[in-house]
Amino acid sequence: MHLTRAERLYPPTFLFCLFPNRFSAGKLLLTYKRTTIAVNTNLKPKLQPPLIIVNFKTYLEATGQRAVELAKQAERASKETGVYIAVAPQFVDIKAVAEAVDIPVYAQHIDPIKPGSNTGHVLVDAVKQAGAVGTLINHSERQMTLANIDAVIQLAKEHDLVSCLCTNNPTTSASAAYLCPDIISIEPPELIGTGVAVSKAQPEAVNNTIKLVRKVNDDAVILCGAGISHGEDVAVALKLGAHGVLVASGIVTAKNPYTVLREFADSATAKLPQ
Amino acid sequence: MHLTRAERLYPPTFLFCLFPNRFSAGKLLLTYKRTTIAVNTNLKPKLQPPLIIVNFKTYLEATGQRAVELAKQAERASKETGVYIAVAPQFVDIKAVAEAVDIPVYAQHIDPIKPGSNTGHVLVDAVKQAGAVGTLINHSERQMTLANIDAVIQLAKEHDLVSCLCTNNPTTSASAAYLCPDIISIEPPELIGTGVAVSKAQPEAVNNTIKLVRKVNDDAVILCGAGISHGEDVAVALKLGAHGVLVASGIVTAKNPYTVLREFADSATAKLPQ
Amino acid sequence: MHLTRAERLYPPTFLFCLFPNRFSAGKLLLTYKRTTIAVNTNLKPKLQPPLIIVNFKTYLEATGQRAVELAKQAERASKETGVYIAVAPQFVDIKAVAEAVDIPVYAQHIDPIKPGSNTGHVLVDAVKQAGAVGTLINHSERQMTLANIDAVIQLAKEHDLVSCLCTNNPTTSASAAYLCPDIISIEPPELIGTGVAVSKAQPEAVNNTIKLVRKVNDDAVILCGAGISHGEDVAVALKLGAHGVLVASGIVTAKNPYTVLREFADSATAKLPQ
Amino acid sequence: MHLTRAERLYPPTFLFCLFPNRFSAGKLLLTYKRTTIAVNTNLKPKLQPPLIIVNFKTYLEATGQRAVELAKQAERASKETGVYIAVAPQFVDIKAVAEAVDIPVYAQHIDPIKPGSNTGHVLVDAVKQAGAVGTLINHSERQMTLANIDAVIQLAKEHDLVSCLCTNNPTTSASAAYLCPDIISIEPPELIGTGVAVSKAQPEAVNNTIKLVRKVNDDAVILCGAGISHGEDVAVALKLGAHGVLVASGIVTAKNPYTVLREFADSATAKLPQ
Repeated sequence: MHLTRAERLYPPTFLFCLFPNRFSAGKLLLTYKRTTIAVNTNLKPKLQPPLIIVNFKTYLEATGQRAVELAKQAERASKETGVYIAVAPQFVDIKAVAEAVDIPVYAQHIDPIKPGSNTGHVLVDAVKQAGAVGTLINHSERQMTLANIDAVIQLAKEHDLVSCLCTNNPTTSASAAYLCPDIISIEPPELIGTGVAVSKAQPEAVNNTIKLVRKVNDDAVILCGAGISHGEDVAVALKLGAHGVLVASGIVTAKNPYTVLREFADSATAKLPQ
Repeated sequence: MHLTRAERLYPPTFLFCLFPNRFSAGKLLLTYKRTTIAVNTNLKPKLQPPLIIVNFKTYLEATGQRAVELAKQAERASKETGVYIAVAPQFVDIKAVAEAVDIPVYAQHIDPIKPGSNTGHVLVDAVKQAGAVGTLINHSERQMTLANIDAVIQLAKEHDLVSCLCTNNPTTSASAAYLCPDIISIEPPELIGTGVAVSKAQPEAVNNTIKLVRKVNDDAVILCGAGISHGEDVAVALKLGAHGVLVASGIVTAKNPYTVLREFADSATAKLPQ
Repeated sequence: MHLTRAERLYPPTFLFCLFPNRFSAGKLLLTYKRTTIAVNTNLKPKLQPPLIIVNFKTYLEATGQRAVELAKQAERASKETGVYIAVAPQFVDIKAVAEAVDIPVYAQHIDPIKPGSNTGHVLVDAVKQAGAVGTLINHSERQMTLANIDAVIQLAKEHDLVSCLCTNNPTTSASAAYLCPDIISIEPPELIGTGVAVSKAQPEAVNNTIKLVRKVNDDAVILCGAGISHGEDVAVALKLGAHGVLVASGIVTAKNPYTVLREFADSATAKLPQ
Repeated sequence: MHLTRAERLYPPTFLFCLFPNRFSAGKLLLTYKRTTIAVNTNLKPKLQPPLIIVNFKTYLEATGQRAVELAKQAERASKETGVYIAVAPQFVDIKAVAEAVDIPVYAQHIDPIKPGSNTGHVLVDAVKQAGAVGTLINHSERQMTLANIDAVIQLAKEHDLVSCLCTNNPTTSASAAYLCPDIISIEPPELIGTGVAVSKAQPEAVNNTIKLVRKVNDDAVILCGAGISHGEDVAVALKLGAHGVLVASGIVTAKNPYTVLREFADSATAKLPQ
């Protein structure tokens, strides 16, 4: 059910990931880079900031056919503004959503398992075959052990999925940066669902996190992930150095999700040129 | 996130469920019966023994398009023999499978949650909207607390889903019978995936379980759920008083799943008239 | 780490436990009874109602030396009134408390493990050697799977410990009765720590539970376990048919725990003769 | 039950911990250092390599009175050789062991909780009052989420306990180094209890880990933690750059634990001068 020793130890991308900037000058090392993280090479360019990821959680407003409709609104806002907007529907809705829209679809979680006897668990292959191109990991509502976070990030890399690791404070974010996820989303659990944006309530947390993460990881995209509900929250987040936002109720339970997403996207692009 | 007090206490079907046979003579009580367990009334007649439920677990042979193909083979065996054959694919495959076949589709698990903030969890509404008509509960690979088993069985009833509760020995099976699931599947974890059928390795366990369960619950369908790999296993299970089998690797990893399912179904129907 | 198949299946006390009253007439069966539940025979007479069990939880007021002092106050109240008062301190305090007082000491939890490689877990042998004579099981703050509850009750029996199983509503209480714990304590999680006694807020729950439990289990002692804070709560609980109370903050955080315990014990004994 | 936002964010020791060597030249910063990590200042000098920590797990050979006796043998080996030998008994045995010996006593785990309603959990205050001076964290047999590891390390610091964080591979060890535990013990779960020492089976893992951890954390003591069973294993571990070993069955189930501990300690001190 779990990964073998050989699969856990010595991930090939490890050393590079820790010190990518030191390797970038040499040609040989660039080759090394291409080889080792080739799996996600195609995904990386697509993660063009600003990013907005909409977590559907288990809201009825984002379940079944309504998940498809919400994803279409996200697609419309994305196409009109050029902003990367991804959606993370429930497991059962991934396939229908992925078939209905052209924007990236993420899973909300995958389990650290291999194919076989894991009744009721979420297999990376199944999620991928259903059309997901990424996954949230360690959301505060679905936390994992350190060893499992590491294992799932490796699974995501091996299956060419974007890994979006959620963390709860600057310390754990810096710690997580060492595990080389593609995206780190800082989500103080106290603010989730409150409508108070982390980028406003804890601007220093966002700032600290970015600085600390950058000490060890030059590549990770950094998102703010709690309480985002106004376009202004997005603008503040970007001004503080984040590359985007992870948002849930602010969009999902809005009367008109398209309008709010449009406001987010406009705010994001308006701030960028500054 | 969890059920309220009012939702947990006093489930309306409770008293009836415990002593249904004592209520069956009186007209008034029959009315009571119709009211209280109306939700599952439509499902019950469909649970006509013998039953075969195929748990796809997270086998690659039963993931994505291969899940759909496997379900079609189950559908063929069911239509040819008239035996109730249900399939339990992974969450992400429920919708595609349910759209492709006419046999019952079960989820492998649902979480004891209500709509809202439950990232990475499995909502009963989502599973149902995707086309599932039932769910496994408390499989040995996805065990739950006693309070959560109770809550999920209630959720299944309220959403008109068949609840198939897995237990690991006679004691817990009898205990579980009090929670009034539609199906109880005895699954000694030691035999799962071994190819040694519970109905042969532990015939007394099957027998004991049935007797004990019947002391408190006249309605529950009883399945044997571990190591079933030959038609003979199915026949023995039925002879011991079970109503069918819950099977996984015996079908999923077979070279020709249809052939084995056909063997199972033929064996099941051959034994019934005796 | 877990119990073997042989240890889980066929617990010797099982059949008797389910139907003790049907076995009591025959001499042979009485012998059977003596043999099979001999382990707890010595404990049962000590469980003389009314019972008061004080759960110390992890309150600082009941940690370390203060745990010993609190236990001494419980001992004083017990000796003065003759009421069975037991205390359930934290794991690390069991030994010191058990050495300091003559009243029964319970663990707050034990794990379903056997001796060996279980770092950070709670072994029944260790708890017993430290002086505990019983254990809480499945408290709402430390819930267990159905299989583990069953395993721990068996472990308790084998080690001659009183098993006090906590449940959250009438349904799960009746289900739990089948697992044959010595004590069943109904604890609706919504009332814990509120000061609203289950025996007053949900008298019908207490009543239902007792009736349902008695259908399958004639022996189990039944306690009310949430919100008990006044002598009157204890009297009401006993009047409804409970044998006592499981109490925590009502005693532990009281200005004068002895006074409150004395009130509880007096109320319990005053009501009994009626 | 969990820590508040203010307690999780902005731990005062954080920035210093990440870059202690860069702060050491300036007087002001030294002052800062003294202030912020004062709590553990007294402990740090005591963590003089080589270190041997004996994890008693839940072995019967190390339960109750036998835990005290085993600790006395460890104390004798420590006093005779001058090597730092600590013992980590079960929760219930901490107090008796701490009262019986003069060597450091560790808990095997503490929970990320504050005083209050946490039945069956392990409170840092209780462990400390019982005499523990440190705690294992995240042992492979008792894993925690990333957020909880962070919270427990902070709890340990605040309560002046040595934090010994167990990790399973180089990646997670480096990640963990950012959380600033006092000790990092690398424990590939595949080797635990096998008698195959990590320092011999995976010397490169030990080496990698040390290098990676040192990139971000100059202070943490590093132990090898799996399969250590011979004096030679200890010598190899130290030669590879580790500061000592975390050992369990190699000592606990030995016929003569004192002899083996003596061998370990002699081997450790013999190698150091080289």
